[in-house]
Amino acid sequence: MKLASLRKPGRDGQLIVVDKALQKAVKVPEIALTMQAALDNWGEAKPKLEKVYQDLNAGKASGAFSFNAKDVHSPLPRAYQWADGSAYLNHVELVRKARGAEMPKEFLTDPLMYQGCSDSFLAPTDPIPMASEDYGIDFESELAVITRDVPMGVSAADAGPYIELLMLVNDVSLRNLVPVELGKGFGFFVSKPASAFSPVAVTPDELGGAWRDGKAHLPLITHLNGKLFGKPNCGVDMNFSFPQLLAHCAKTRNMCAGSILGSGTISNRDPSVGSSCLQEVRMLETIATGKPQTPFMRFGDTVKIEMLDEKSVSIFGAIEQTVVKYEGARG
Amino acid sequence: MKLASLRKPGRDGQLIVVDKALQKAVKVPEIALTMQAALDNWGEAKPKLEKVYQDLNAGKASGAFSFNAKDVHSPLPRAYQWADGSAYLNHVELVRKARGAEMPKEFLTDPLMYQGCSDSFLAPTDPIPMASEDYGIDFESELAVITRDVPMGVSAADAGPYIELLMLVNDVSLRNLVPVELGKGFGFFVSKPASAFSPVAVTPDELGGAWRDGKAHLPLITHLNGKLFGKPNCGVDMNFSFPQLLAHCAKTRNMCAGSILGSGTISNRDPSVGSSCLQEVRMLETIATGKPQTPFMRFGDTVKIEMLDEKSVSIFGAIEQTVVKYEGARG
Repeated sequence: MKLASLRKPGRDGQLIVVDKALQKAVKVPEIALTMQAALDNWGEAKPKLEKVYQDLNAGKASGAFSFNAKDVHSPLPRAYQWADGSAYLNHVELVRKARGAEMPKEFLTDPLMYQGCSDSFLAPTDPIPMASEDYGIDFESELAVITRDVPMGVSAADAGPYIELLMLVNDVSLRNLVPVELGKGFGFFVSKPASAFSPVAVTPDELGGAWRDGKAHLPLITHLNGKLFGKPNCGVDMNFSFPQLLAHCAKTRNMCAGSILGSGTISNRDPSVGSSCLQEVRMLETIATGKPQTPFMRFGDTVKIEMLDEKSVSIFGAIEQTVVKYEGARG
Repeated sequence: MKLASLRKPGRDGQLIVVDKALQKAVKVPEIALTMQAALDNWGEAKPKLEKVYQDLNAGKASGAFSFNAKDVHSPLPRAYQWADGSAYLNHVELVRKARGAEMPKEFLTDPLMYQGCSDSFLAPTDPIPMASEDYGIDFESELAVITRDVPMGVSAADAGPYIELLMLVNDVSLRNLVPVELGKGFGFFVSKPASAFSPVAVTPDELGGAWRDGKAHLPLITHLNGKLFGKPNCGVDMNFSFPQLLAHCAKTRNMCAGSILGSGTISNRDPSVGSSCLQEVRMLETIATGKPQTPFMRFGDTVKIEMLDEKSVSIFGAIEQTVVKYEGARG
């Protein structure tokens, strides 16, 4: 099943069911007005939404209209939780190696995770407004899950069934603000501004056999300014599965339905597949030559993030965002 | 004006207007069903809610009923953002001094702030369920504000009017989990479980002249197991005002209406007023004698957090929570 949120009305948009080919969609006000409302009542809503999805794919849904990724917001335009792991330790090792530091052994057993801001996500085709290029603007191509209600203390072995939907993420990062924020010890905060998610969220069965062991065994494809930047496989070198990340997140808290949990930047040890963020390329350059050559994003630069199925059909639609100069508030 | 949220129905409860003396309340479904709905439409909702508040105080509101703090959830039972600053640097200095470290000078100009989990707050009179006393369970008595929509890049000079409501917070902290989480560099995460907020949120004018310069110039009173623990003044030794904290929070992001921003643990340099968390007492003991004597909270321990006006009347109602053993999930 594929779901999305029209940008209007209101702050949370309107829930729609989207067909498998991302060509048609239909509103479902009789089931739920918003994605969060559906998730709040998922046990009842899910089978009804699945019936609509079947009808839509069979060309039998009344009220169907053409689906356009530009008309939708992130599946949850705002959420009660956005927790982002860092499950691909190759990425973490490279960061450390570039500054001559070892990765602590505990990182192999205790997941890295930060709490991100979730009150105002960007739409998948929205620009990324930023006040200054000096912030070191970077993208991070990731996969994320949306959960139902998760009880505190759930084990990794039991956590899988709490995963209801998958999405792609552009976890925008401001690399030049990271050192000061992390140096203060309280996390990334201002260095992690609003993220954007793929036009469509899908149930794990949409990935078929590629969804197994709590991982998505498909490449995540990133283009920068129209040129292939990376296509690492999400199922390769993922040190913690989504159920393992979920168990970490829920260790000391209940999680509300509609919580979003991210994988961290997808990163494979095989350098031939490319990367999912500029920072990683810059670290590889630093390790090879002593300093980075690739610049961070400039105003006008565009990043596109997409995942294709085995028949090369887009599963989630594409995140496609251009960095623009922010002219509000102080300006 | 004073507002609260009945625990039922649904996940967000029902918005009520509470009278100044915290004796009577009235539902306002014709204005907004939930606190978040009111905040989403604050420009229209606020004057209508204020009219009801005036009528309620005058004994003229129809449908008024007795207010009981046990019937309400936190004013926002779940929120889209909970960002917590650490504006009382005396607290930060003591943490550092206890381990023989200086506080970096930048801390005087660049606020500490972390993103907290906001998807499942505890109600003000709910128990604090925790799996183990070994986590080092502590309270933190704080003040917090709720904002309207805040534009990215707002200056501290312009940020004040975006503050709409004030609340008290118990920012539950798991001290023995902090070092491992902070050591990984991504922030507190599992060491900051669900917080609880005061029964009632109030507009800043409810504090009269005690609300000035973006600070609340009143003591925050904490009792542990019925015994006075501390009464530091929120307006004293607050190195960053709420507008300054707000400007930091919004530096690289828009903030959604209903965002909650905390002050951090209230802490005065005058030791005679006591503290707002066990950790600070333990740090003072460590500085004085080389090691802490006061234990963290044990199952059955109760913390009460309250603020009184100049006539000794409770402004927000009391947060009053008992730590209990969590028996769910793995148990």
